[in-house]
Amino acid sequence: MSRAIAVIGGTGPAGTGLALRWARAGETVIIGSRDSARADQTANMIRQRVGANARVSGMENSAACVASDLLMLTVPFEGQAALLKQLKPSIRAGSILIDATVPLAASVGGRASRTLGVWQGSAAQQTAELVPKGVSVVAAFQNVSADVLNGDLKEDVDCDVIVCSDDPNATQTAMELAVKIPRIRAIDGGKLENARIIEQITALLIGLNIRHKGHGGIRITGLPDAAYKTLAPQ
Amino acid sequence: MSRAIAVIGGTGPAGTGLALRWARAGETVIIGSRDSARADQTANMIRQRVGANARVSGMENSAACVASDLLMLTVPFEGQAALLKQLKPSIRAGSILIDATVPLAASVGGRASRTLGVWQGSAAQQTAELVPKGVSVVAAFQNVSADVLNGDLKEDVDCDVIVCSDDPNATQTAMELAVKIPRIRAIDGGKLENARIIEQITALLIGLNIRHKGHGGIRITGLPDAAYKTLAPQ
Repeated sequence: MSRAIAVIGGTGPAGTGLALRWARAGETVIIGSRDSARADQTANMIRQRVGANARVSGMENSAACVASDLLMLTVPFEGQAALLKQLKPSIRAGSILIDATVPLAASVGGRASRTLGVWQGSAAQQTAELVPKGVSVVAAFQNVSADVLNGDLKEDVDCDVIVCSDDPNATQTAMELAVKIPRIRAIDGGKLENARIIEQITALLIGLNIRHKGHGGIRITGLPDAAYKTLAPQ
Repeated sequence: MSRAIAVIGGTGPAGTGLALRWARAGETVIIGSRDSARADQTANMIRQRVGANARVSGMENSAACVASDLLMLTVPFEGQAALLKQLKPSIRAGSILIDATVPLAASVGGRASRTLGVWQGSAAQQTAELVPKGVSVVAAFQNVSADVLNGDLKEDVDCDVIVCSDDPNATQTAMELAVKIPRIRAIDGGKLENARIIEQITALLIGLNIRHKGHGGIRITGLPDAAYKTLAPQ
């Protein structure tokens, strides 16, 4: 990627994990947080793990939106809508916003293995309603375990990332970003509306993790090789 | 299995495919159909493919329910409730009914890559409301490609079967049945309510199949070995 990736909500487990892996892959990453001091802390932690030449910095969320047109949103569902309304003036026209939000019932005190119904169909479709015109929303990375991302950097990530968007260029960008993380395969999952199923899968995986004490992910089998984007040619 | 498996709706692609694979594994299989002549035809076809010693017979659906207390339901969603109401007097107390039904929007003329909302939460939970008291409902096999099951018997099935039920004994039985099919792994997916997510995954896979021209399945990664039931010890 020539452009920086701004991880909005980058101090949480999912955001930190993605930022860590992308910094490790040599990408330029901006950690966004409500609190710029916390963002700096996370950036420093990532630099310590990846090495001094890691290109990672911390910013307040709205400054991060101004600084990049490639946004990765990793916030709990209960904060998603309010944050997007607040950030709306700062999100640049033409930006790509990748959303990993899952409407877990835990957002309202329920179980993380259950989901809430979202009027628009999915958290990602709610996001699409809240971003400025001309911003492309992509749903991706919901099913990747934050524990695995934040774990041993020598251990690859055994998970496929299904990418859904109504903008094929944005899908392409998110797929390229996904395969920067070793062993992740990216699959074009079609329109943004399909995010409603991918989001549910996260709740399933959380349930399986609780039941079986694991860090579940998914792989899609049975598609032709061309359907799987990987970093190195297969 | 010591008991016969009665596949209700066994002349459709999913039912025929499962029956074929179980007959091949040496199980005793009853093909159930609205029309006993069609059931016989399918049983004959399976015998031709598996060999003369295949233990497979055809029956009308209600006769198949009377003949076995291990039922595998593979009917399109639009016929599910009516069929269960009709079969209710024939389903034996203490039976296990494994349901692979998915509420695809295609049931009402919509797309097979979309689902309908079911009042009870899932097709399997609807089934649980319609069977006689004392019958244990299990949700399983929704994500296994019928094309793959019906394909070359030398080709194994690259898919995990997530099994959901409120009756642990019934879960166990369905898991044992799943791993009779080479390379399928069975995973305890917890309560029957979780079927709502597994059912959605089928619509996702159908969408991926259309988009990428494949026969998609899923594998769950990242759980400890003990979470995966396989036929041979790993």
